Amino acid sequence: MTDPFTYSRRVQFSETDMAGIAHFANFFRWMEEAEHAYFRSVGLSVRTEYQEMEIGWPRVSTSCEFFVPARFEDQLQISVGIVKMGEKSISWEITFSRDGTRLAVGKATTVCCIWSNKGLESIPIPAEIRLKLNPA
Amino acid sequence: MTDPFTYSRRVQFSETDMAGIAHFANFFRWMEEAEHAYFRSVGLSVRTEYQEMEIGWPRVSTSCEFFVPARFEDQLQISVGIVKMGEKSISWEITFSRDGTRLAVGKATTVCCIWSNKGLESIPIPAEIRLKLNPA
Amino acid sequence: MTDPFTYSRRVQFSETDMAGIAHFANFFRWMEEAEHAYFRSVGLSVRTEYQEMEIGWPRVSTSCEFFVPARFEDQLQISVGIVKMGEKSISWEITFSRDGTRLAVGKATTVCCIWSNKGLESIPIPAEIRLKLNPA
Amino acid sequence: MTDPFTYSRRVQFSETDMAGIAHFANFFRWMEEAEHAYFRSVGLSVRTEYQEMEIGWPRVSTSCEFFVPARFEDQLQISVGIVKMGEKSISWEITFSRDGTRLAVGKATTVCCIWSNKGLESIPIPAEIRLKLNPA
Repeated sequence: MTDPFTYSRRVQFSETDMAGIAHFANFFRWMEEAEHAYFRSVGLSVRTEYQEMEIGWPRVSTSCEFFVPARFEDQLQISVGIVKMGEKSISWEITFSRDGTRLAVGKATTVCCIWSNKGLESIPIPAEIRLKLNPA
Repeated sequence: MTDPFTYSRRVQFSETDMAGIAHFANFFRWMEEAEHAYFRSVGLSVRTEYQEMEIGWPRVSTSCEFFVPARFEDQLQISVGIVKMGEKSISWEITFSRDGTRLAVGKATTVCCIWSNKGLESIPIPAEIRLKLNPA
Repeated sequence: MTDPFTYSRRVQFSETDMAGIAHFANFFRWMEEAEHAYFRSVGLSVRTEYQEMEIGWPRVSTSCEFFVPARFEDQLQISVGIVKMGEKSISWEITFSRDGTRLAVGKATTVCCIWSNKGLESIPIPAEIRLKLNPA
Repeated sequence: MTDPFTYSRRVQFSETDMAGIAHFANFFRWMEEAEHAYFRSVGLSVRTEYQEMEIGWPRVSTSCEFFVPARFEDQLQISVGIVKMGEKSISWEITFSRDGTRLAVGKATTVCCIWSNKGLESIPIPAEIRLKLNPA
């Protein structure tokens, strides 16, 4: 796995539910936020112009296991790293912690695609982007 | 005002917050849902191709007053009508009720625009669309 | 698996993203909506008073695979069934379709819990609730 | 008005819509985030134990005017100040900017309430809280 990048995020009131905890669907939004922060941390954006093409990274699968609830105003540490970089796809692992306690672990697989009027088409990850995302 | 159109909507768990009630920001999503249901009820979509242009209706202002909280699994009656149709804009009024009790009242002003690569440009509401939205 | 229950849901504008498709995190909100509709279809609510206890069903894990994007105003058919009912937990499978095309498949495991001031405590699924959820 | 407090917030992908801009309902979530950050900046939380009571601040009305769209990855400067503090309520004004350009202006009125099993009850803003929120 790449050295994980840590994204810090406070739980907002609108992200809680009537059970008094953060609603689980927000963990998927936060995973994506962390991935995008990872892209920025290496000088990229998840939405990139590349050789006059518009590149994006739709998700083909994602999952999350929940161990301990997150609560309003918690400052989460969201650690995101690449566990595998295939020809066209990236497998991510994301760990959510608060004060050293692990709250949840998520996984996601995203695919490098060109967005056009004709829709989405997967492409091999361009070498320059590959190198920035995973310098190892 | 046009005869109001009623859109029915159940409050979902993900729309509640830790105060045990529907989070206020959802009322703005529900207003928009009701407006779009109104468009469909007259045979339109809020996103329309018109003479090879892509028409949309961005919002320039909106507000809501809250009287009584909405709760999980409440079946809301959302009544939406046009209070004024200007040359380029529509003023909406939206009332949220549950079993005859008025919970909230919202207002919104949306502007008829063409979406293009150059961005948004407001246009006079085309006559055909105007007639469908407000037959009076 | 139990006979699947089908919940119908239109994709709303606020659920789309700048890629022009429904944002993936909404599939997790929709899964939960469908589970809760399943509870209602058998005369229960996901939040139940039972012998003066407040019962809820937090999620310990969930996942989704995405095959085809959902788009604005799509009318989704969300089929939800119970694939396994353990002593304390339920495993759900949820299939998202549009006009017979399968868009995505999700899974979730939820645990029967009592909510109290002391927090969450898992309990065996009460026999009455078990029978209603899975009459087979 | 109190000296405005500035809260910085990046627009996330899940907050965009198919028009390619931030969905308007998010401005209401961001206003609330900024208000809560204001509370923290003066050593309070919007959810406070006070003399064994649970205090909260539900919203009775809110509005927003939109001038310029916000886009993915924009770093917003959200300036929040108190324009009026009544006996039981606070009137807020919130300005959204990006690189010195004003994108939107919102208003909100929140009421000091006790949350109990019996529901919400408005109370005079306790002197200690009043002094921290508006030291002038």
